Amino acid sequence: MQNSDTTEDVKMAIQKNFQKMGEAMAKGDLGLLASYFTEDALLKFSGKEPIQGRVGITKAHQEMLDRGILVKPETTEVQSFGEMAYEIGTYQLVTSKNEKIDSGYYATIWKKVDGNWKIFRDIISSTAS
Amino acid sequence: MQNSDTTEDVKMAIQKNFQKMGEAMAKGDLGLLASYFTEDALLKFSGKEPIQGRVGITKAHQEMLDRGILVKPETTEVQSFGEMAYEIGTYQLVTSKNEKIDSGYYATIWKKVDGNWKIFRDIISSTAS
Repeated sequence: MQNSDTTEDVKMAIQKNFQKMGEAMAKGDLGLLASYFTEDALLKFSGKEPIQGRVGITKAHQEMLDRGILVKPETTEVQSFGEMAYEIGTYQLVTSKNEKIDSGYYATIWKKVDGNWKIFRDIISSTAS
Repeated sequence: MQNSDTTEDVKMAIQKNFQKMGEAMAKGDLGLLASYFTEDALLKFSGKEPIQGRVGITKAHQEMLDRGILVKPETTEVQSFGEMAYEIGTYQLVTSKNEKIDSGYYATIWKKVDGNWKIFRDIISSTAS
């Protein structure tokens, strides 16, 4: 195992994580979904109070699942610093019929825990007012 | 000059920058205010399209100045990685009479340019819906 991933390694790890997170949502496996966040992750949606920890993160994703909302993230930039990295990206929230509900930007701080990149901080800024 | 600031150094530099930025706003010196952002900085307010570059950033702060809005940031966490750092914080937008207009969280990526820490990426997530 390398001690220090390159930015390119992290970019690929993030894309793979997003794919796996999408699959976990599609299966309704929210325990798996939550495992892509650190135990103490902070998740801040626009227009909501922040959520900290996997219990709250699971609940928030359950609500999205119940409402049939899918998240489509797209990475704009990544830079890695050993065991941590930041990512800036854009996102869309869509219905199962691919109708756009919301879109905006996010900043994610990724942290490598036991060899796996996990979401540590996720600050989401909607473009819609 | 040190090549690599500690997290504590960067935390102090950020607090000093916030103080200077507040003074620049109070004086209406938006050129000075904009100098605390990198030339290619991305600033994303909640409910708005992103702004990139100092011209747009100056304009956005002119609008806040015209409306008598003050930004009160408060750092929650900082971690530095050589010439870059991330910061998570909370903010309040208040009127000159200290009435709260908005509050929320932000993620800022700071970059050291010619020995000075500047805002490179700023993603702001309002708590108000």
